[in-house]
Amino acid sequence: MEAAGDVEALVAGVLAGERRAVARAISLVEDGRPELEALSAGIYGATGRATTIGITGAPGVGKSTLAAALVGAARAHERRVAVLAIDPTSPYTGGALLGDRVRMQEHATDPDVFIRSMATRGHLGGMALAAPEGIRILDAAGYELIMVETVGVGQAEVEVAAATDTTLVVLAPGLGDAVQMAKAGILEVADVFVVNKADREGAGEVARELRQMLHLGPAREHDPPVLSAAATLGDGVEELWDAIEEHEAWAEASGARDAWRRARLVAEVESLAAERFRVAVASALEADARLAGDLAERRVDPYGAAAALARRASP
Amino acid sequence: MEAAGDVEALVAGVLAGERRAVARAISLVEDGRPELEALSAGIYGATGRATTIGITGAPGVGKSTLAAALVGAARAHERRVAVLAIDPTSPYTGGALLGDRVRMQEHATDPDVFIRSMATRGHLGGMALAAPEGIRILDAAGYELIMVETVGVGQAEVEVAAATDTTLVVLAPGLGDAVQMAKAGILEVADVFVVNKADREGAGEVARELRQMLHLGPAREHDPPVLSAAATLGDGVEELWDAIEEHEAWAEASGARDAWRRARLVAEVESLAAERFRVAVASALEADARLAGDLAERRVDPYGAAAALARRASP
Repeated sequence: MEAAGDVEALVAGVLAGERRAVARAISLVEDGRPELEALSAGIYGATGRATTIGITGAPGVGKSTLAAALVGAARAHERRVAVLAIDPTSPYTGGALLGDRVRMQEHATDPDVFIRSMATRGHLGGMALAAPEGIRILDAAGYELIMVETVGVGQAEVEVAAATDTTLVVLAPGLGDAVQMAKAGILEVADVFVVNKADREGAGEVARELRQMLHLGPAREHDPPVLSAAATLGDGVEELWDAIEEHEAWAEASGARDAWRRARLVAEVESLAAERFRVAVASALEADARLAGDLAERRVDPYGAAAALARRASP
Repeated sequence: MEAAGDVEALVAGVLAGERRAVARAISLVEDGRPELEALSAGIYGATGRATTIGITGAPGVGKSTLAAALVGAARAHERRVAVLAIDPTSPYTGGALLGDRVRMQEHATDPDVFIRSMATRGHLGGMALAAPEGIRILDAAGYELIMVETVGVGQAEVEVAAATDTTLVVLAPGLGDAVQMAKAGILEVADVFVVNKADREGAGEVARELRQMLHLGPAREHDPPVLSAAATLGDGVEELWDAIEEHEAWAEASGARDAWRRARLVAEVESLAAERFRVAVASALEADARLAGDLAERRVDPYGAAAALARRASP
């Protein structure tokens, strides 16, 4: 627990772009600490300046390598850049499994690059609510470009990656085809597609199949381009950078970006408020020693029990 | 909207095991209709008899083929069996993408087999809350074995598959390795591992790597076996069936199964109650015309806005 003065100092440190303050602020988000409210209020005025990029795709397609390559491109364009890798907590490691150290080594000493993995163990809203606050901290600290990378490819992960200005969906040969991606609801969120590992057999077919699939889908305001890259070789990275900038320019000029950002903020507030209620529900539940037995013995059904519980909870 | 008498007839139909009633009841769950509460109350007394199996794994590992093979095994053991495939809603199809018709053709005419995909478009709690009610409907209708298959492999999908008596995690050569699975938090939920497509190159290595990975993890009360199968050829299916029965027998005898079931019911009630609050929050939000502007202009921060909103909402 930190005193009010400590949060003030933390806010000042984040606004000054101090790396240690930024790291500590993100840890507050990970742990869902009560100081989060004061931190959020303190930094919010300095947010909304950064451009955000979401990166998602099946495990193994090379999202991290692509993110590292984009960090290089951002630095070549003299942009301050941060990467937030959203990792589910795993008992196998007791925390985030992707280390900050093991990858993106080449950027480790660059003061204008910040790379961090974020677990969401303590934050009640999970990654969907932890990620936007993590992004705002990096934004307030002056990073101009913020990339968010998700590990899995489920509903929650896709939502996190989609809650950005430009969403990159990464594919690779041999790692689930376009039909599988469509099943997972992942195609619809893409602003830019990248077929990575383009030096491998089958890459051309993945791109062809994807284009066919997109052709079957609904028309989009801004059709997502399908690019190729081989991130480990550096191939296609500059083209990818251009496509991202092109999408960003369109979104800004058309007003779509500001509309998305507003809608995302309102949806986030709704979820945050609902989470406050969840806490009230949990304590009402804890006070009810009989519920588990009543459910198990079929004296009350789950929907009926929930209605009764909601009446008793006071947020 | 159905009248109260209609729900009563629906409940009677489900309890009598009528296929059309079961299908209509599951549609009610999909759409999150208000009649759900009466349906839940009506059938709950007849639930808790079925054994449930969750099937998860990366896209393309052959979960559906394996599920179809297990349906065959269940029928050979004279068990009434149902499969519920949980599909995210995709605008590409306007609904569940996996058709009931295109697979498991061989069981289509067997009156003791029920196969259904379930979208969760209207259910406020998403698949995490729709799936358990779907399972209860099938349970009340007299299916003795109920398999739940998820499409993606994210946090939400893994949770749904894990909320069963025995959770099967399916792997296959070339579709994400064990390290990737650990990143996605998927290894911890497995009661039984199956390396499918065992006739393909690399299957042995997947199993070896997985065993190594498990060796590094924490000790488990009941160590999950690692089996091999080639579901399209029918190889390894009987061994898989035996492993599932062995786990089920252990869980029942040790008391673990009843403890898990109780804990899952309480957690579900907590989530259902929280969803009721979410509805109240959403209407309070709708009544607040200024919030979006205040957020966009940085007059209020998301956490502060959520606290104010929670105070105004009355569930």
